[in-house]
Amino acid sequence: MNNKNLLVVILIVTIIFSCKPSEEKNITVNSTAEQELIFPKGKIIANDNFVGNAWLEMLVFADSINQNSVGSVTFEPGARTNWHSHPNGQIILALEGEGYYQEKGSEKKLLRKGDVVKCPSNIPHWHGASSDTEFIQVAITSRINGSTEWLEAVTDQEYTKR
Amino acid sequence: MNNKNLLVVILIVTIIFSCKPSEEKNITVNSTAEQELIFPKGKIIANDNFVGNAWLEMLVFADSINQNSVGSVTFEPGARTNWHSHPNGQIILALEGEGYYQEKGSEKKLLRKGDVVKCPSNIPHWHGASSDTEFIQVAITSRINGSTEWLEAVTDQEYTKR
Repeated sequence: MNNKNLLVVILIVTIIFSCKPSEEKNITVNSTAEQELIFPKGKIIANDNFVGNAWLEMLVFADSINQNSVGSVTFEPGARTNWHSHPNGQIILALEGEGYYQEKGSEKKLLRKGDVVKCPSNIPHWHGASSDTEFIQVAITSRINGSTEWLEAVTDQEYTKR
Repeated sequence: MNNKNLLVVILIVTIIFSCKPSEEKNITVNSTAEQELIFPKGKIIANDNFVGNAWLEMLVFADSINQNSVGSVTFEPGARTNWHSHPNGQIILALEGEGYYQEKGSEKKLLRKGDVVKCPSNIPHWHGASSDTEFIQVAITSRINGSTEWLEAVTDQEYTKR
C-alpha cells in the first residue's frame, strides 16, 4: 500500500469512528426524553367523571391532620374532567404538555408546563388536555370541607369554544 | 490535482461537515436540559434558615380559604434548610436532582426526581441537596395551624453522617 492509499484508509476509518458518537448521543437524547416524566403515569381512571382517557397516580392521601391529597393526572389529547367544584378549592401545577382550565362563566385558559392555577372554592370548573397534546398536571386538593362535587360532562361544543 | 488527491480533499471536507451536526445536536441537548426546568428558579433566599445557597419561587400563597402555600425551592449542592417543623405538616415533591430528607431521630433519606415526602406535624426535620448534585423540590405547606418553626442549623457532621 502506498502512502496515499494508507491515508485514504485512515480517513475512512476516522469518518466511521468520529461520527458514531453523534448517533449514540441521539439515542441518549431520546431515552432522556422518555425519562423526563417525573411521576409514574398511574392507573387509567375508570369512572364517569371524565371524557376521554386520563390516568391518575396518587402521590399523597389526605389524613386527619394534613387534609390535602396530591395526585398526578395525565390526560390524553382531548380528554378532560367533567365540570366539578371543590369545597375548599384546588391547586393545579402544569408539569408537561398543553391543557385547558375553565371556570363557569369565564373563558378557558391555556395551560403549559410551569403554569399554576388556584381554583376558588365551590366554583364549577373543568381541566384537561388540548385537542392535540397530552397534558400532565399535579392536583393539590384540600379535603378540609369535604370532597369534590361532580357535575355534568364538558360537551364538545364547550370544549372547542374559543 | 490527480484523482487520489481529489479523493483526499473530498474525504476531509466530508469529515468536517459530517461531524458538525453532532456538535449542533449537543448544543440542542444542553439547551433542552436548561429548558427542562418546570418552574423558574426564583430568588435567592436571603435569611438565616438555610446553610448554603437556595432559591425560592413562590407558586401559590396561602389565603384565608385555601391555607396552603406552594413553592419551588432549588438547593445548590451541599445547601440545606435548618432543622424546622410545621404545625400542620408539609408535602415535598422531588422534581430534579438528588437531595436528602431527615426527621430528628431517624436516618436521612435520599430523594430523587419523583420521590414524595409527607412530613408529619411538629416533627423537626431538614431537607436539601446532596453534596454534589443540585436538588429541586416543590413544598406544599399547610398554614392552617400557623407558620414554620425554625430551629438550629444542620451541622456538617449531621449533614454528612451516613
